Amino acid sequence: MQRTEIATLGEFGLIKHLTDNIELKNEETKYGVGDDCAVLSYSDDKEVLVTTDLLMEGVHFDLTYITMKHLGYKSAMVNLSDIYAMGGMPKQITVSIALGKRFCIEDMEDFYEGLRLACNEHNVDIVGGDTTSSRTGLAISITAIGEVEKGKAIYRNGAKETDIICVSGDLGAAYMGFQLLEREKQVYYKQLETAKTDAERMAISQPDFSGKEYLLERQMKPEARRDIILKLRELGIRPTSMMDISDGLSSELIHICNQSNVGCRIYEERIPIDYQTAVMAEEMDMNLTTAALNGGEDYELLFTIPIADHDKIEQMEGVKEIGYITKKELGQALITRDGNEFELKAQGWNPLK
Amino acid sequence: MQRTEIATLGEFGLIKHLTDNIELKNEETKYGVGDDCAVLSYSDDKEVLVTTDLLMEGVHFDLTYITMKHLGYKSAMVNLSDIYAMGGMPKQITVSIALGKRFCIEDMEDFYEGLRLACNEHNVDIVGGDTTSSRTGLAISITAIGEVEKGKAIYRNGAKETDIICVSGDLGAAYMGFQLLEREKQVYYKQLETAKTDAERMAISQPDFSGKEYLLERQMKPEARRDIILKLRELGIRPTSMMDISDGLSSELIHICNQSNVGCRIYEERIPIDYQTAVMAEEMDMNLTTAALNGGEDYELLFTIPIADHDKIEQMEGVKEIGYITKKELGQALITRDGNEFELKAQGWNPLK
Repeated sequence: MQRTEIATLGEFGLIKHLTDNIELKNEETKYGVGDDCAVLSYSDDKEVLVTTDLLMEGVHFDLTYITMKHLGYKSAMVNLSDIYAMGGMPKQITVSIALGKRFCIEDMEDFYEGLRLACNEHNVDIVGGDTTSSRTGLAISITAIGEVEKGKAIYRNGAKETDIICVSGDLGAAYMGFQLLEREKQVYYKQLETAKTDAERMAISQPDFSGKEYLLERQMKPEARRDIILKLRELGIRPTSMMDISDGLSSELIHICNQSNVGCRIYEERIPIDYQTAVMAEEMDMNLTTAALNGGEDYELLFTIPIADHDKIEQMEGVKEIGYITKKELGQALITRDGNEFELKAQGWNPLK
Repeated sequence: MQRTEIATLGEFGLIKHLTDNIELKNEETKYGVGDDCAVLSYSDDKEVLVTTDLLMEGVHFDLTYITMKHLGYKSAMVNLSDIYAMGGMPKQITVSIALGKRFCIEDMEDFYEGLRLACNEHNVDIVGGDTTSSRTGLAISITAIGEVEKGKAIYRNGAKETDIICVSGDLGAAYMGFQLLEREKQVYYKQLETAKTDAERMAISQPDFSGKEYLLERQMKPEARRDIILKLRELGIRPTSMMDISDGLSSELIHICNQSNVGCRIYEERIPIDYQTAVMAEEMDMNLTTAALNGGEDYELLFTIPIADHDKIEQMEGVKEIGYITKKELGQALITRDGNEFELKAQGWNPLK
């Protein structure tokens, strides 16, 4: 593999190299990379949505198993997901990267390839950013900008008693993918430790991921649910509240309940879980419901709809009704398969604990 | 000094604690911290400006001499400066921070105090962000959003032959402030090395910065030049191109010339330099013009105006005409005090070299 040192281009050269042939796709994007700011234009009947994320090596990603291309893709996707979670459409992103000496231009090209792939799929323009150095690991900061019709943004605070709680796709797979990758990494390190010769080191077997592809895909290549937003619009369903699931269903549902000043009941048996997720949890002797409730990184949409929309939502593929909103006094609880009630707890991923 | 561990609050608790009593000041800010996105509203006759910066500990700042409060102030200011550099007014910022275990809640409070001070001075709303952990140093990512009248953004690419080149304030002071702080840090470390007892360590003298206050202020507390933008509007002067000086006059002027496809001549004797900057350069045996041309971090505005506006700009305090725009073929040059011509080179600060 080729390795070209970043110093051969310098900061401006690198940005130019990476963003040179970027075509602007949205009429709202007046000016992209190359000046002090990007310039955007929105009409009176729209509102602008802004979201930002900071991803740190060793905390949010591990380069021993995610490629730079996947990392670029995922970094963009998790931000686009936040725009969809407001009921909006993403239009632009800015990308800042701080990188240490061990990265070369080819790494950055791979990262941008993933980034562009995600942006192309979602019709999003890359309009600016910053490329700088880091004394240590890689840091990635992405800001996504989107639009929504005036007054139509869907907040976390609009859930009402009797609303139905819905979730798109399935949960827990990204978390089990993470567990799988972590396990294989440990296996690899152990083999490396005991290998005494180069021949032995060369002979270390690659992990076999067959039958677990979905878990890896969910972990490394999450997809922001534009399709769900479009389908909801098509069916004329307007959620009363919405969030994307990044920290785990349990944690996000608590956010919605607290901000909406309501309680909830969700049914364990209705939580959507893929077959591979269940097999992997079994194999690792982990509680499946816990993984689905608290695993996080699903980037599915969690939303509430008026009970009157029940028939409409039933037509929608890939969305499951998992429970309902109650009075605040009833608290937030999970009803297990055997009919017991357990209080929901935000045990989702917390980088500061 | 009190030290409260961040784990006592967790991520959401920390963000809530830091942003709880933030009042939104701009009517364009519909919704701030607390949802997936901030929601902004702009009218048809405005354009939205977006800029972002990623600041890494050990690369962009050194916590041995900048306080968390100053760091917050400066982090905001450098982004606001980019909005002004487009001729716009900043309205919102988002703030993401990744921090290691050595930071406590009080540190974050200080950081936000500086951030808020900068935002209050410039009437800017803090509308969102991300607080996460870092395995190593501190990383700060700020995105600023602003507005400008439709079609009135000032780009880098509009400079025309015969335009006058102007610069606000004075240059090189922030760089000399940095040199001063670096020197005193080394002195301190040497004293610490030779000190053998606690008493000796306690007796290490604090550096005496008297007569050098301006240099420290320029390094630690830069001010974005809102006043210049307002004054230019008042006088009816519309710059043909504009940038803020973060990497150094020389580097920024080359950007303007290359993007505008023109050349330039600037006069060494006309470059504005403060007395303290000159004294410090002398003391450190450094070339004063080099410091002013390449030092960077001035956050002054560099702009070009039509020659017809010469009389108007002469009335303006704190702005100096330093040269003029030429045909591209004539290149980009500095005319020294003794009348020689030297080609301008971008020797400004480059984190990737």
